Amino acid sequence: MISRNEAKYIQSLYHKKNRDAEEVFVAEGVKLVAELLNSHAGIKTIYALATWVKHNPEVQNVVTVSESELKRISGFETPNEVVAVIQKKIIANIPEVRGKITLMLDGIQDPGNLGTIIRTADWFGVENIIAANDTADVYNPKVIQASMGSFIRVNIFYTDLKQFLSANAIPVYGSVLNGEDISSVEPPAECLLVTGNESRGIRNEILPFIQKKITIPRVGKADSLNAAIATGIILWKFCKRN
Amino acid sequence: MISRNEAKYIQSLYHKKNRDAEEVFVAEGVKLVAELLNSHAGIKTIYALATWVKHNPEVQNVVTVSESELKRISGFETPNEVVAVIQKKIIANIPEVRGKITLMLDGIQDPGNLGTIIRTADWFGVENIIAANDTADVYNPKVIQASMGSFIRVNIFYTDLKQFLSANAIPVYGSVLNGEDISSVEPPAECLLVTGNESRGIRNEILPFIQKKITIPRVGKADSLNAAIATGIILWKFCKRN
Repeated sequence: MISRNEAKYIQSLYHKKNRDAEEVFVAEGVKLVAELLNSHAGIKTIYALATWVKHNPEVQNVVTVSESELKRISGFETPNEVVAVIQKKIIANIPEVRGKITLMLDGIQDPGNLGTIIRTADWFGVENIIAANDTADVYNPKVIQASMGSFIRVNIFYTDLKQFLSANAIPVYGSVLNGEDISSVEPPAECLLVTGNESRGIRNEILPFIQKKITIPRVGKADSLNAAIATGIILWKFCKRN
Repeated sequence: MISRNEAKYIQSLYHKKNRDAEEVFVAEGVKLVAELLNSHAGIKTIYALATWVKHNPEVQNVVTVSESELKRISGFETPNEVVAVIQKKIIANIPEVRGKITLMLDGIQDPGNLGTIIRTADWFGVENIIAANDTADVYNPKVIQASMGSFIRVNIFYTDLKQFLSANAIPVYGSVLNGEDISSVEPPAECLLVTGNESRGIRNEILPFIQKKITIPRVGKADSLNAAIATGIILWKFCKRN
């Protein structure tokens, strides 16, 4: 049984403003909540159907809810047994960028794109993502869904990119429309790899920091390549095991 | 001014059943409608704000609508000036697969994934996609939006894959979890490249047709790679200009 106030509180967390103020977010679905439980995330409360509760007797702070109650607090069209309110992970220290490949996102807006980029980074062993402050929120439910649990493992650090780039001496690569063909680019041992916003690309104030401009040449006729696809191709080239 | 019946008719086209019965679909936004006009698509009716009509005086079959009317017939949260009802493209002949790279989709479900795959195919010069009958509908508004106009140029042919594979003698490649590392696969001059459904992969009945199983090896910890990202990486490797 869930109180009206509790339901309202959970619904309020679908807005970034409230997630920021409360320092929590909503994650849902059997598989994702299991991953969060395994990862020792700071789980505040779990709202679940009786079937889920029966299969997870050891889990604490669980409120058993009916299907209609679950529907009311879920962000899915078809809720999947369990909704959890989780403490945000606080990234206290600036991520170390030396000696590895780190992604830098200059304002990716689409939550699906961001989630897919996080999942792709996780596949290729990228530990950290530095994101411009106007990048979509990692705790947006659509980002969480598209990242498929990878947001638990990959750190997203929101900051002023210009300031970050000025303070860190490391090779900076960026994907642009008129750079060097990625086929002939030697994979670096360490770099920041900048991906621009879906429609405007990399901001003018960031471009001067990019030492190596790279491009995935077009063979056919599409206007542009999706930002997550471009990132995936470059990460595969840069992060392959030898 | 749009009649109540007309508005109802357009809203009905957000359901596949009605698109199939009427052989039309809805496309919207200034850029996409301009592309459709340029591509000589069979445009039935255009519903547009007065500003759009003023900038496109030569276009026929235009109904001028108010902002609130546009909102009622649009699938977007923020409509973008124009909504068009378009005749579906009828692909009369089975696409020719010899001598080129053709994508084969074994039940991709997510409209965003399908749209991104179409856009990526268009970027790499893939002309045709053969899709299992249970693949998402190319005329789903979310597919159209994610494809960014590429659905106009890339043919999607829905069919029974098993029958198609039995009838066409051509090398068949498939992306699976335990295949040969894509890094060591020689790009073929012609092939069908099969991508499986997001959760179950390639169906058991299709697997025996695959002569070359390929994999993008995991470096990090994600459970799986997004289907569109995997397709993008393989297409880049196979379709690069020399």
